[in-house]
Amino acid sequence: MTRQQLFDKIKEKESFLCVGLDPDWNRLPKHLLDHDDPIFEFNRQIIDATKEYAVAYKPNIAFYEALGSKGWEALEKTIDYLPKNTFRIADAKRADIGNTSNMYAKAFFDQMDFDAITISPYMGQDSVTPFLGHERKWGILLAATSNAGSFDFQDLLVDNNSEKLYERIIRKSADWGNPNNLMYVIGATRVETLISIRRQIPEHFLLIPGVGAQGGDLEQVCKYGLNKQCGLLVNSSRGIIYASDGEDFAEAAAQVAQTLQHQMAGFLSRYLK
Amino acid sequence: MTRQQLFDKIKEKESFLCVGLDPDWNRLPKHLLDHDDPIFEFNRQIIDATKEYAVAYKPNIAFYEALGSKGWEALEKTIDYLPKNTFRIADAKRADIGNTSNMYAKAFFDQMDFDAITISPYMGQDSVTPFLGHERKWGILLAATSNAGSFDFQDLLVDNNSEKLYERIIRKSADWGNPNNLMYVIGATRVETLISIRRQIPEHFLLIPGVGAQGGDLEQVCKYGLNKQCGLLVNSSRGIIYASDGEDFAEAAAQVAQTLQHQMAGFLSRYLK
Repeated sequence: MTRQQLFDKIKEKESFLCVGLDPDWNRLPKHLLDHDDPIFEFNRQIIDATKEYAVAYKPNIAFYEALGSKGWEALEKTIDYLPKNTFRIADAKRADIGNTSNMYAKAFFDQMDFDAITISPYMGQDSVTPFLGHERKWGILLAATSNAGSFDFQDLLVDNNSEKLYERIIRKSADWGNPNNLMYVIGATRVETLISIRRQIPEHFLLIPGVGAQGGDLEQVCKYGLNKQCGLLVNSSRGIIYASDGEDFAEAAAQVAQTLQHQMAGFLSRYLK
Repeated sequence: MTRQQLFDKIKEKESFLCVGLDPDWNRLPKHLLDHDDPIFEFNRQIIDATKEYAVAYKPNIAFYEALGSKGWEALEKTIDYLPKNTFRIADAKRADIGNTSNMYAKAFFDQMDFDAITISPYMGQDSVTPFLGHERKWGILLAATSNAGSFDFQDLLVDNNSEKLYERIIRKSADWGNPNNLMYVIGATRVETLISIRRQIPEHFLLIPGVGAQGGDLEQVCKYGLNKQCGLLVNSSRGIIYASDGEDFAEAAAQVAQTLQHQMAGFLSRYLK
């Protein structure tokens, strides 16, 4: 999917919501466990319930790998089931030497037709660029993540204290790709960084995890993160897919997704002229 | 496998060789393509041919994921086939928020019974520690890798130029685990760093990729890297598994592995008193 196509979809749905498909076997609604493939059935119902409100879906690959080859099959079925006009992100946080990153690109872009994959920057240019040369496909590079441990290394001052590590990573990697094939992960807990990041990269899309059903953080993210082509994909995983653990889990998920979409529609009309 | 068990195995085999099982479909010997599962058949023959000379095996997960659920099945069969007294490393370079890293640990330690998994440090403590709390299991943290891009960020001077990023990562993470559950990846191309790294962490095992059939580099690695319990696992992937692309690929692999093992036996007796 191109940047223009993604922006068109955002305008049409008045939403930049990404739904994280992270199905934890131990948190599945009990009545699904009789199905042949409970993980896929869970995803299928979540997708059906939320597709009106979401422009993107993001399966975190760990939750499938934890189930072995059966989990991998459920992932393949899920990506096939996702509507073709949604933006499909493999949250995989991969990267390896060039030869090997090529194999990961093959896995997620060719074998499974994802639109994008999240990438870890630590191994540098030749581990990242293999994800950037595929038409209408995207690499999404970790920059400032949302977890507590993100401060261990990402905010270290580098080279005579001239900038933080994640700023250096953004600055260097922006030359490896461009706003049409490269996005960045900025945690919703890092709102204070969005102002300077938007100065550095005004055009790139940012994938923002860590927003729940609370509108407060979302407003801050929008205020400092939105650009002329929206430039944001805001993800919610557990807040949506585990909104209820009963038979009404899909309706409950729809309700949370709808609430977020309504808020997003408001922010788009307020900040996006 | 405990550190003592690993060291006992190294002494018994007079080897600290790790064989990288990275089967690229396009490089498989042609006569294997008729098999039901060419990837597994390739691995099976490589394992049989090299197990006398190797103490460890390291499948890089990308090569299996590139083939979808069939690749994942071949990986599961490979790990089941590996002799139980070898050290089995999932070269996966994973790490995510704590909740998700737990899922990866489940995938590789419970679902597949690997002894160790390689980890990317960028997301910090809560992304790494989920791999360190499993009895007889290991996390292997990327520090200074062997690829060209490793210099993009890993060698940046941090905090008033007091140390390099990879040194900071080693120093901080050494407190998250200990020499019985944590190893580090140091590329064979980084021999000059081994002296200072051994000062920082004299006891930890290091996983050294990037050594081919050439004895020169190996000698340098041994001179500066060996410690009282060996403390090294030296990996060769393509140099062994693609030593020949004909029907004699397994014999050719055995020969390269044997040569490396002989060199290692010499270095062990020279440097390990």
